[in-house]
Amino acid sequence: MTAPEKIPSDLVADWNTLHRVFIRPEDEKSRQTLVKYMEQILFGLHDFLNTHVGVTEAIPLATLAESYTDTRINKDPEKKLADVIKDIINEIAPKAVNVASPYFIGHMTSAIPFFMVHLKAIAAALNQNLIKLETSKVLSVLEKQVLAKMHRMIFDKPPTFYDTHVQNVDTSLGLFTNGGTTANITALWVARNLCLPPTEHFLGVEKDGMAAALKAHDLDRLVVLVSERGHFSLKKAGGILGIGNRNIIAVEVDENHQVDMAKLTRLVEKFSQDKKTQIVAIVGIAGATETGSIDPLPRMAALCKKHRIHFHVDAAWGGPVLLSEKFSSLLTGIQAADSVTIDCHKQFYMPMSAGMVYFKDPKVLDQIAYHAGYVNRKGSVDLGIKTLEGSREASSLILDSALKIMGSRGYGLMIDHGIETTRLFAQKIRDRALFQLVTDPVLNILTYRAVPAHLRQYLDAHLPQSRRQHLDACLDEINTHLQRIQREAGKSFVSRTCLKIRPGDSHTAVVLRSVIMNPYTTGETLDQILDEQEAILQTIEISDQGFYTP
Amino acid sequence: MTAPEKIPSDLVADWNTLHRVFIRPEDEKSRQTLVKYMEQILFGLHDFLNTHVGVTEAIPLATLAESYTDTRINKDPEKKLADVIKDIINEIAPKAVNVASPYFIGHMTSAIPFFMVHLKAIAAALNQNLIKLETSKVLSVLEKQVLAKMHRMIFDKPPTFYDTHVQNVDTSLGLFTNGGTTANITALWVARNLCLPPTEHFLGVEKDGMAAALKAHDLDRLVVLVSERGHFSLKKAGGILGIGNRNIIAVEVDENHQVDMAKLTRLVEKFSQDKKTQIVAIVGIAGATETGSIDPLPRMAALCKKHRIHFHVDAAWGGPVLLSEKFSSLLTGIQAADSVTIDCHKQFYMPMSAGMVYFKDPKVLDQIAYHAGYVNRKGSVDLGIKTLEGSREASSLILDSALKIMGSRGYGLMIDHGIETTRLFAQKIRDRALFQLVTDPVLNILTYRAVPAHLRQYLDAHLPQSRRQHLDACLDEINTHLQRIQREAGKSFVSRTCLKIRPGDSHTAVVLRSVIMNPYTTGETLDQILDEQEAILQTIEISDQGFYTP
Repeated sequence: MTAPEKIPSDLVADWNTLHRVFIRPEDEKSRQTLVKYMEQILFGLHDFLNTHVGVTEAIPLATLAESYTDTRINKDPEKKLADVIKDIINEIAPKAVNVASPYFIGHMTSAIPFFMVHLKAIAAALNQNLIKLETSKVLSVLEKQVLAKMHRMIFDKPPTFYDTHVQNVDTSLGLFTNGGTTANITALWVARNLCLPPTEHFLGVEKDGMAAALKAHDLDRLVVLVSERGHFSLKKAGGILGIGNRNIIAVEVDENHQVDMAKLTRLVEKFSQDKKTQIVAIVGIAGATETGSIDPLPRMAALCKKHRIHFHVDAAWGGPVLLSEKFSSLLTGIQAADSVTIDCHKQFYMPMSAGMVYFKDPKVLDQIAYHAGYVNRKGSVDLGIKTLEGSREASSLILDSALKIMGSRGYGLMIDHGIETTRLFAQKIRDRALFQLVTDPVLNILTYRAVPAHLRQYLDAHLPQSRRQHLDACLDEINTHLQRIQREAGKSFVSRTCLKIRPGDSHTAVVLRSVIMNPYTTGETLDQILDEQEAILQTIEISDQGFYTP
Repeated sequence: MTAPEKIPSDLVADWNTLHRVFIRPEDEKSRQTLVKYMEQILFGLHDFLNTHVGVTEAIPLATLAESYTDTRINKDPEKKLADVIKDIINEIAPKAVNVASPYFIGHMTSAIPFFMVHLKAIAAALNQNLIKLETSKVLSVLEKQVLAKMHRMIFDKPPTFYDTHVQNVDTSLGLFTNGGTTANITALWVARNLCLPPTEHFLGVEKDGMAAALKAHDLDRLVVLVSERGHFSLKKAGGILGIGNRNIIAVEVDENHQVDMAKLTRLVEKFSQDKKTQIVAIVGIAGATETGSIDPLPRMAALCKKHRIHFHVDAAWGGPVLLSEKFSSLLTGIQAADSVTIDCHKQFYMPMSAGMVYFKDPKVLDQIAYHAGYVNRKGSVDLGIKTLEGSREASSLILDSALKIMGSRGYGLMIDHGIETTRLFAQKIRDRALFQLVTDPVLNILTYRAVPAHLRQYLDAHLPQSRRQHLDACLDEINTHLQRIQREAGKSFVSRTCLKIRPGDSHTAVVLRSVIMNPYTTGETLDQILDEQEAILQTIEISDQGFYTP
């Protein structure tokens, strides 16, 4: 089943080579070589990324794809490690995306501290599997401690609570996941199971499935309520869990892009009167993907408490703001959640990919416990009993080490820099005639759009519907072009998304989106990015004369 | 919300420190320091693991847990990177599990080639996010190529097929996941959706949920059929997907621990006649977790084809055997599957954690497509459109580089060594009076148990039921003790599980389980492990006189 030989090579796969490449470089020379490779990884890559401060090489995707079409696997080795590393630095890195660039302010991925690469390498070298004690031992114990630290950061229970649970083999304060998506799925999975418990002739939804569950509980439908700013992983969770993604109901937002509490309350009351529909959970957002906005968590918590509804907070983005002395109060109310998602590879600045989900009640993860004869035996410390994922790397070791190296204040400084720089950016956008600030930043995310000078006057004018539509279409096209041209030029990067500029707008407008988390992104960087956009706007004007005249 | 100061430290989190620890060590001295740390990670750890060839320190879990109970996060930094690394090498590593030891033959985790740590470090340093083109660019293109290489290894379609799909933005040959569990969940998710398509008044199970789907299709129940050797992630998938884990039906196995085809066929026929029950999928196992056994894939494929049932093969363990020239024929029939799971962190010898799932039909992943305004736009190359997970590291770069460094033959040699050494181990067990081989290895996994000399005669004797039960209980207790004592002593490690020794046995016996994938595990290693077990057996005899006399 292997492919025919394709590349003549003097490299041969034999047992001696294997011994050499495997884990025992016995002599000093091969050790030095391996260290040199690591140096190349750390600095060859680093130097490249620093001298090419932009985002990526300007090369069309189709051209790129042409070089990656051979689908055969070579029988004998094609390359030595040294050449593989050299190729990655010289061929791959320039065509990848320099997410470490201060000019890359478009997505929730950024520069990471240097030591994170070391920590990831340590986790790989130890290669522990956190699914079970027998392949992790002290790491499982450490992970329980890290989970308790994070739980305490979020829920701030009394110290005795943590003394009881930190190393308790029968309870779980949370779990590490691959990322925010599986964290959100896990939270809704638990919430689903909690509201479809066993009855006399029914063993619970986990065992008997959704159809039997709805029959047993005399229900037609489950729903989850979340604002229209909710991350798409929540819809995906609805699909996977058998709830149906149409039943993840998007509640409208107010002018601050927070869930409209009046509308949410009306919906809750409507569903509460409908005996055939059960609300599985209400999801509050602490740092919306598109706007960075934070829902009114205390009011949502009160509503959930009143109606006994599971309250999940998706703080994948905003969670680490709890470490900022200046801004942690923005997340007030999160401690009233039943479950909370936080990502490690976002504002904990860890490398891809790690997330977490926490539960206020340390027994509630029993809802998703699974056992097997060879692993995860009942009563054991095996952490894989109550996780969506199976085998897992020691992300907890990385997070714990990072917290020790940075301190909560170190993280706080990074958070503060992001938020303050984004507020500065908002001011710069307001100060320029060619741009319109769409969402004022609460955290370190904002949206804006380009509005050419002579169209500005029409923005708030009363226009006949057809002219308004023409204007909307023009602005969308300009901003789509602008973002694409800037991205393809590869010097800097903002992303784009679609938002209603004002609640109740019929039109969903194309807007530019900026996420600022790189400590090297400064006011000067932002001016350069706006300058570049203004320059691009000139070219759009020139090449499309009359294009945007309504 | 941060904890009070707890450790007096001269380390302070300020902006200058942040700049130093972040990604720009400008001077030569700090570069040298960072390289030295990597050297410690590569060799400090390595030397420790080599001099402590055993598995772990003999320290009780409760004692260990006592040191990991502080749940406060320090405000200022507690440690420098150098001290964190030193502590991990000196304090954590000895109390973790040395999965790289040739004496660690109990689980599917093992030594990994040295270069894997380099590759993991590269992926971390690049920190690309494969969810979308805008945070990965060439890596997304490379990932599509790797997916096609693996698809070709499994399904071996004509070259034109791969020319069409390798870089096709509208089709998907497979996807990378966090591991075998989410790969299996993804496969059954797709299969579930395929058998509950939209009807006139129903938008499909993904949109409308399971209850509506079963009503629309006039069904009461979905089932998945898999042998009782199936991995527990399949039951978990049943729970998550709303099928109900009781509906993941365990079919009995024959004396080779392969699914009993007569029983499977009868079940399929039974369910096919029951109009209210729909079979979502039949799962074949290619390398069972407990026994390494491989189901009769060609016969299962024929049965699925006849009844138009989705055929999933869980080759999380066995998949890479396809790269062995000697043993790839053991997996004959896998190319007839509709979907196939393969783990990267198992027999592709990659660090935790990465898995994959492949689909024969390049359009079938449309069943689980999700879009969002800010990412994964329709018609884009964004790989996150059709994945369970969201943000993901560049595991594909690691696998691709490893294939280039090793060649398929390099992997083949490792596979061959594992299988041949395990067959040798089986012979050694047969040759020793104190052991009984329970499952003869097909791949590199076997099970056995200790049977003290004077009990041996009763194994096949006709015993009254109560005496047989007493004997069973004695043997279970001896083997449980044996495995635990050996594990806690920390010199070597085999795992244990529970199996019926013969099909139809009423008793499920405790057996020892060995997985041999470390190229440094030799016949001599195995003799030492058996010697140690015989020595432990002596102590059990002495401390429990008369204990096992039936």
